[in-house]
Amino acid sequence: MSNTPSAHNQFDNKSQAWSARFSEPVSDLVKRYTASVNFDQRMAAFDIQGSLAHADMLAAVGVISAADLADIQRGMAQILEEIRAGGFVWSLDLEDVHLNIEKRLVELIGDAGKRLHTGRSRNDQVATDIRLWLRHEIDLAIELLGQLRHRLAALALEHADTILPGFTHLQVAQPVTFGHHLLAYAEMFGRDAERLADCRRRTNRLPLGAAALAGTSYPIDRERVARSLGFDEVCRNSLDAVSDRDFAIEFCAAAALIMTHISRLSEELVLWMSPRVGFIDLADRFCTGSSIMPQKKNPDVPELARGKTGRVHGHLVALLTLMKGQPLAYNKDNQEDKEGLFDTADTIRDTLTIFVDMIGGVRVKADAMRAAALQGYATATDLADYLVKRGVPFRDAHETVALAVRSCEERGCDLADLSLDELRGFHADIQDDVFQVLTLEGSVAARKHVGGTAPERVRIEARRILDEAEQA
Amino acid sequence: MSNTPSAHNQFDNKSQAWSARFSEPVSDLVKRYTASVNFDQRMAAFDIQGSLAHADMLAAVGVISAADLADIQRGMAQILEEIRAGGFVWSLDLEDVHLNIEKRLVELIGDAGKRLHTGRSRNDQVATDIRLWLRHEIDLAIELLGQLRHRLAALALEHADTILPGFTHLQVAQPVTFGHHLLAYAEMFGRDAERLADCRRRTNRLPLGAAALAGTSYPIDRERVARSLGFDEVCRNSLDAVSDRDFAIEFCAAAALIMTHISRLSEELVLWMSPRVGFIDLADRFCTGSSIMPQKKNPDVPELARGKTGRVHGHLVALLTLMKGQPLAYNKDNQEDKEGLFDTADTIRDTLTIFVDMIGGVRVKADAMRAAALQGYATATDLADYLVKRGVPFRDAHETVALAVRSCEERGCDLADLSLDELRGFHADIQDDVFQVLTLEGSVAARKHVGGTAPERVRIEARRILDEAEQA
Amino acid sequence: MSNTPSAHNQFDNKSQAWSARFSEPVSDLVKRYTASVNFDQRMAAFDIQGSLAHADMLAAVGVISAADLADIQRGMAQILEEIRAGGFVWSLDLEDVHLNIEKRLVELIGDAGKRLHTGRSRNDQVATDIRLWLRHEIDLAIELLGQLRHRLAALALEHADTILPGFTHLQVAQPVTFGHHLLAYAEMFGRDAERLADCRRRTNRLPLGAAALAGTSYPIDRERVARSLGFDEVCRNSLDAVSDRDFAIEFCAAAALIMTHISRLSEELVLWMSPRVGFIDLADRFCTGSSIMPQKKNPDVPELARGKTGRVHGHLVALLTLMKGQPLAYNKDNQEDKEGLFDTADTIRDTLTIFVDMIGGVRVKADAMRAAALQGYATATDLADYLVKRGVPFRDAHETVALAVRSCEERGCDLADLSLDELRGFHADIQDDVFQVLTLEGSVAARKHVGGTAPERVRIEARRILDEAEQA
Amino acid sequence: MSNTPSAHNQFDNKSQAWSARFSEPVSDLVKRYTASVNFDQRMAAFDIQGSLAHADMLAAVGVISAADLADIQRGMAQILEEIRAGGFVWSLDLEDVHLNIEKRLVELIGDAGKRLHTGRSRNDQVATDIRLWLRHEIDLAIELLGQLRHRLAALALEHADTILPGFTHLQVAQPVTFGHHLLAYAEMFGRDAERLADCRRRTNRLPLGAAALAGTSYPIDRERVARSLGFDEVCRNSLDAVSDRDFAIEFCAAAALIMTHISRLSEELVLWMSPRVGFIDLADRFCTGSSIMPQKKNPDVPELARGKTGRVHGHLVALLTLMKGQPLAYNKDNQEDKEGLFDTADTIRDTLTIFVDMIGGVRVKADAMRAAALQGYATATDLADYLVKRGVPFRDAHETVALAVRSCEERGCDLADLSLDELRGFHADIQDDVFQVLTLEGSVAARKHVGGTAPERVRIEARRILDEAEQA
Repeated sequence: MSNTPSAHNQFDNKSQAWSARFSEPVSDLVKRYTASVNFDQRMAAFDIQGSLAHADMLAAVGVISAADLADIQRGMAQILEEIRAGGFVWSLDLEDVHLNIEKRLVELIGDAGKRLHTGRSRNDQVATDIRLWLRHEIDLAIELLGQLRHRLAALALEHADTILPGFTHLQVAQPVTFGHHLLAYAEMFGRDAERLADCRRRTNRLPLGAAALAGTSYPIDRERVARSLGFDEVCRNSLDAVSDRDFAIEFCAAAALIMTHISRLSEELVLWMSPRVGFIDLADRFCTGSSIMPQKKNPDVPELARGKTGRVHGHLVALLTLMKGQPLAYNKDNQEDKEGLFDTADTIRDTLTIFVDMIGGVRVKADAMRAAALQGYATATDLADYLVKRGVPFRDAHETVALAVRSCEERGCDLADLSLDELRGFHADIQDDVFQVLTLEGSVAARKHVGGTAPERVRIEARRILDEAEQA
Repeated sequence: MSNTPSAHNQFDNKSQAWSARFSEPVSDLVKRYTASVNFDQRMAAFDIQGSLAHADMLAAVGVISAADLADIQRGMAQILEEIRAGGFVWSLDLEDVHLNIEKRLVELIGDAGKRLHTGRSRNDQVATDIRLWLRHEIDLAIELLGQLRHRLAALALEHADTILPGFTHLQVAQPVTFGHHLLAYAEMFGRDAERLADCRRRTNRLPLGAAALAGTSYPIDRERVARSLGFDEVCRNSLDAVSDRDFAIEFCAAAALIMTHISRLSEELVLWMSPRVGFIDLADRFCTGSSIMPQKKNPDVPELARGKTGRVHGHLVALLTLMKGQPLAYNKDNQEDKEGLFDTADTIRDTLTIFVDMIGGVRVKADAMRAAALQGYATATDLADYLVKRGVPFRDAHETVALAVRSCEERGCDLADLSLDELRGFHADIQDDVFQVLTLEGSVAARKHVGGTAPERVRIEARRILDEAEQA
Repeated sequence: MSNTPSAHNQFDNKSQAWSARFSEPVSDLVKRYTASVNFDQRMAAFDIQGSLAHADMLAAVGVISAADLADIQRGMAQILEEIRAGGFVWSLDLEDVHLNIEKRLVELIGDAGKRLHTGRSRNDQVATDIRLWLRHEIDLAIELLGQLRHRLAALALEHADTILPGFTHLQVAQPVTFGHHLLAYAEMFGRDAERLADCRRRTNRLPLGAAALAGTSYPIDRERVARSLGFDEVCRNSLDAVSDRDFAIEFCAAAALIMTHISRLSEELVLWMSPRVGFIDLADRFCTGSSIMPQKKNPDVPELARGKTGRVHGHLVALLTLMKGQPLAYNKDNQEDKEGLFDTADTIRDTLTIFVDMIGGVRVKADAMRAAALQGYATATDLADYLVKRGVPFRDAHETVALAVRSCEERGCDLADLSLDELRGFHADIQDDVFQVLTLEGSVAARKHVGGTAPERVRIEARRILDEAEQA
Repeated sequence: MSNTPSAHNQFDNKSQAWSARFSEPVSDLVKRYTASVNFDQRMAAFDIQGSLAHADMLAAVGVISAADLADIQRGMAQILEEIRAGGFVWSLDLEDVHLNIEKRLVELIGDAGKRLHTGRSRNDQVATDIRLWLRHEIDLAIELLGQLRHRLAALALEHADTILPGFTHLQVAQPVTFGHHLLAYAEMFGRDAERLADCRRRTNRLPLGAAALAGTSYPIDRERVARSLGFDEVCRNSLDAVSDRDFAIEFCAAAALIMTHISRLSEELVLWMSPRVGFIDLADRFCTGSSIMPQKKNPDVPELARGKTGRVHGHLVALLTLMKGQPLAYNKDNQEDKEGLFDTADTIRDTLTIFVDMIGGVRVKADAMRAAALQGYATATDLADYLVKRGVPFRDAHETVALAVRSCEERGCDLADLSLDELRGFHADIQDDVFQVLTLEGSVAARKHVGGTAPERVRIEARRILDEAEQA
């Protein structure tokens, strides 16, 4: 038996048998079913980045020579170029991004390429690649959330004085400013960015060095690798490092909330654009027409975004289901983590990008908003508050106003349409300063505390967000 | 203003503006975000099939001429050929499979092509396409489930007498035959086929004729279209017809159960192949090795299948979330129904196909199974039953046997290792016929009623399933 | 060692140790964590029903005596009475509904009670109880769906001629009749009833006789038990019978669709009741007010129902996750099937009941509906169809109408407001019969085919549903 | 019309009509369907805490008098005492915890009680209550996670030298120490605690002051309320404050990961306790027996915990579904946030508590672990590494060892059983120091880098965790 088992090199016999230990090759369907190269090749640049840091460390601790390192660096530079130029040939036979690149490396530089895999395994390699890739996606998403908040705050500042009905239960509740309404979404997307930043901390830990599951007998220097890849920490347990997908699930959970917020904003955009409401118009470039109804202008983008909420929620469920009940350490199940994760990142990136543009394309119909706010007794609470300030217990004031509203409904008028005498019929303490609180402007201006809807407060908050965004 | 608005034909101005009513084109990102042609082109053959049935009906009721129909048939034949040959050019500008095909039709046959869309809308057209496509996938899946049941029954027949420990709580409970164990899965996959057949009935109803949402003013003959497309019924409400995705959700729910069953079988295959258990070996072609551990033979296929359970559960959640709270009738959200549905169908088709093959490649290690069945007091229940048949109340017999087992544990022996005298020490009614019930063979043979684990019953059930599969 | 191990009876030592084999009792927290009696006692009547059928069969095949059977029947009658009267004492120490009832039975009738458990196990017993309970719930739900469809059809008949705008993308598309809109929901709830009936078939199979997992050595007659309990079939594999929860998952999937339909209807009710839309009013008894805004009338019931969609979707996910990857046969995980299933059945029962009443309390504001339908060029499609019928290819007609709509928008008028001359400016083929198709009534009346929105069609469909409901 | 509308006090007319504006009362079913008092009364102490802070602020800014504040404090103290003593009468007519308490307050102290609700609404009140309650639950869960990590680390320290096979794909991969295996879970639960701490920051923000949706016209001091309730910040937008449930979803997502980790540990405990594996025994108090198989000892607690994973995943889906597509601001849907959230907190609290105890009750069978590690060529990787260190490229070494393993398999022996000559037959560079790396001890000891399985590393890591836990 020769010590050069060239007939059983792992690279060229995937179409024959996995290794010397196997007596039959995998079938074509099995090959396709188990291969990941069709979707994991998008991690190629990160795979190479990780390999270079690993090789650099192997050379530093003396496991490979400086010449080997130079060969590996040269080979990898060429491979990266081939991939970028579209000339790299991906082979299903080589199962995944890792083996495809390593095979090419060995072709290009020979034995030095075979030494690269020393002290690591595909288990820790793929975990490192995903974390590098995801860290990049998180940074993009945080940037986009910042841009979206900036757009919302800019529009809010422009409409700090525009009044529309604030709804609860889709019933007119109290007048609010449109700027205030927009800033509610800026708050949501701000929390989303916070969550992603928290998720980034847990993503940015280095699994490499865990090898297959137990660590390696080579004298590796994991801190060096972590530093060169920009990781904050090293994973402190090899069994956990190769099997942990918490960071992916946490990212999907954060993404699910982003899309939930997008779905709420979309619901409102669709509603506001409906002719029965008519509060805004979206720029034509975010809408489509109908193949049968020539008059239609459909808010396709917010509707589709609302629909895409489902797929992101679904991916979160998929990953949780995937990890449920898995024993340590690595199981092949984990390969299923990628497609859903990739699609989640793509969906939030595309959706946030398009929303940044779309918010800039919202045309506000302030007159329609104002007209709607005058319906529905929006200032009834202000009348109740007015009475309380004159000493009427809150619960009694509430009932008094309810009677007044009922009477208005029967007469088909608004509270502000009642005369002072009529109002005094409901409560003797009402004076003629009451009409100040019954106007829309009076109502919103009074709510000027932190968190309130008053124009002056909206300006403060919008400027704070604009400043933050500009400093970022 | 001319009555030939050729400058604003819907087909060639998607890159300009949606219709004469729009003043700006959609941006490239919006185009990509909202287009479906990248994934819905897989429905092309069904789209053409539906269009031909629609055209045939339009001609039959006199809305188009026989010459138009002939042109449409000729054009569609050529388009189908172009698609099959790979020469058809799909354009993102034309948004979806429907407009791509219709545009090409108009290129090929002129005005007759423009008349095809009479009396329908993309809303009912896409609903029809999905149903035709899904009906086809359901039929494939039912066929595969039948094949899988056949394989399980064949292996069960072969192992009607092979005994392994039946586990509850992963603790040895009672001896069972391996054939009986396999048939449990045949039952599950049998129910899956039933569910798909039920889902097929609700899928196989024709939405075409609902037009955009309200039906059409043309004198259409929906029953004729239904007949020519093989639909059982027509959808009886146009608003429902264009917005209904129940059939897709129901299919995903059925698929989620299929994958749940696959995950259970996979869990057992992985467990049985673990060296601590060692009940079976899987053929090499369903396994892979390790990039770092040369001795490994990993049951990749069952592990990956178990992992894929997550994605199918996730797609079900995605579709339910998609439809939650949608007002009537069609909303753009619905376009998001497809990718998850396609992936679900692909996943169950590939998984079932590979399992049919893999079950044929299971090598049973009957000795290891038998050895395991002799551990863990598997016949304790038989001893309790023995006592009951001699008049001891069940609950008392249960406690007697518990004491005997505890005593065996302390001595490190099995119940069958006790002498008659020792056994009689636990209960005076025990006679020497007790040893018959304490053997594995005696235990399983006694459970011969419908549903029981006895070899004779396994043969009956396995043959029933084989017969069914062969008649199908 | 005595043959009457009274010190270790399974019933009275749960607070000491599980059986003679155990050396320490479970802690109080473990007892509470693992006990199910707090929630499974609702199955008590079904547990007793199943036990009586089992006892009857045991007597018929000679395993117990006629006297034992009589004792059991007498004892169970008393227990049922105690439970109904509220006097039965449930004990957490006795873990579940089964042991609680059996313990009481032994107290009441002695040894005959101890013989009841012969040939069965709690594994097949609980599976039988759940199926009996769920069959009952399915029947209730089908009945309620029928009542809801009846209400919808009755209201549809009343409003067969009431016209409102049909929306797609929440944009005005074409006029539809309110009756037609309501019947879309009748279709959905009709499919829901079909699905439940299919689920019932798979639920209505008898697991009893599977014993713990392998069947039993007693000469049981499962068909007899099935007949006396009204089951259609017996489960044909004992391992499957004790571990199968497909029927529960299938029920939850059907319930998830019911709630999805409820969420869609609720979304519309909330929208229609919003003052910006104002199409309907809900009876006060389904609404609540505000603690701060006296003028509010909030559609609480549809909102809450829409919210409850989430919990039912969640229970479906819970059950699927529960079963994922479980090896055969019974595992304790399965105990977790109940609470979510119970809550699902309660939620759909309460929700459907309340919707039956609420649909009867919908006050239709036909004038507001009509006014809205006159906005938004709802008859544009009719104009396009008009042109097509005069020989204009559909795609060209579509563009012509788009230009006309754009012109109307600029002038702030409707299509019907244009003079014949103006209309002819868009296409020379337009004649004065065009005004017929431009009215709302003309538009809906033309869509009289099966599935169309025409009043005459609505009447036919509504009467069909009313007839079905009355025959049921 | 009187200005004392006593006949329409909001408290006593819920069974009549909601307010003066309503003409009919809610039906009993509607009352039950919409009431939350049955489940939200668990927040009573937090509701009172929030009310007291609100009242204190109202007095500080002069909205209520010092005498009113004293009355409110006295009344609330009595109510809290009544609730704790079980004497408080909860009424379904009063809908929720807030109205029940306020009604009682008015009974006890009269008009001062009616003034308490000034400047707030139930919308911001309930949001405050949930956050206070959840903050408390988060603190409990973090404490329990710390205890669980302490137990795992203590057991790990005890078993730093105990060797078992490390599995990947449930196949023997490489030897690992049991201490290392346990510490993998300590890492997971450590991340869980981090995530809860992050979630706590976003939970610990004050919504009170948002009133119904727009803020209030009273001169409130939100920072004062935040300080007195221990909140870190105030919510900066009132519309967001009343409708935000992100914190609840984020908590459920963190809980879903906790349960996923619990499910993985449970899977292993169940597997390790299976007689085919036999690595551990669980204390009897966490197990139960069988009603039919007297010999059984079932690991009920880990199985049930694994099953409970489903319900927590389900609650996460429920909350995400709930919030999807909700327009601003508060909708009644949101009331559905509580039951799932409560059950999630209960489930993780009970499960973590029981696991803390159970880990202390694990009996390790070191001999069985060691015997298993000697199966399966666990040191094959060490042999490959040995060759690489002698200059053989990794990929070639891998193939050499694969051939050696295949040969051993054929002969039925382990690598360590081969003679030096036989080993040299596979590669000439093998020397007699090879036997050092082929032992289990040699293999694990070599992996001493950060994250590796070596006993010395396990001691370092375990002590670090124990120190952390003790400092906390």
